[in-house]
Amino acid sequence: MASSSAWVPVVRRPLDADQARAFAPMFKALGDPVRLRLLSMIASAGGGEVCVCDLTGSFQLTGPTISHHLKVLREAGLVDSDRRGTWVYYRLVPAALALLAGLLDVGSVAAGV
Amino acid sequence: MASSSAWVPVVRRPLDADQARAFAPMFKALGDPVRLRLLSMIASAGGGEVCVCDLTGSFQLTGPTISHHLKVLREAGLVDSDRRGTWVYYRLVPAALALLAGLLDVGSVAAGV
Repeated sequence: MASSSAWVPVVRRPLDADQARAFAPMFKALGDPVRLRLLSMIASAGGGEVCVCDLTGSFQLTGPTISHHLKVLREAGLVDSDRRGTWVYYRLVPAALALLAGLLDVGSVAAGV
Repeated sequence: MASSSAWVPVVRRPLDADQARAFAPMFKALGDPVRLRLLSMIASAGGGEVCVCDLTGSFQLTGPTISHHLKVLREAGLVDSDRRGTWVYYRLVPAALALLAGLLDVGSVAAGV
């Protein structure tokens, strides 16, 4: 994945069609309350990764539904996972979040807002 | 709208259900390639605003379809608009982008990635 520094914030230069097609799925993955919470739980995990068994208890949702949302986050490149024994462990892909934060960076444009 | 400084990056603290419900629609609005391009065109406009008449030419889409996507961006709080005479003019809401960028800020977590 390209580093965030390779991308110019949208306040500086418009995205072309290819760039928009590449980035939109990452934002779309974050556009669901359950996935956004899951991402935040994985991102803020103290040990750097979270067992799926520790994620399901926070939601009134079935295991397969949680797994589906985690798969969407993984396919968008926002998280990565490993199966170890019975459980799957998830961890953040920090470069992906940095890329999106870089695109949305308003810098001095936001001053005074 | 709360300033971005009111929100802790997701790498520091997980979002609760109410926060996730508040922010997910903003990410969802960005989760479409046409809307993401439109936002970037509005955000990077030299004069701070763009006439809808200057946006439609970049897409193989009808005016009503472009207007629908602009409405989604506006309802998500990412852009604002004014009707002046025949045309509607759109401008970025920088605080909204700053808020999302702040949520996704990985700071030192991304170092070395």
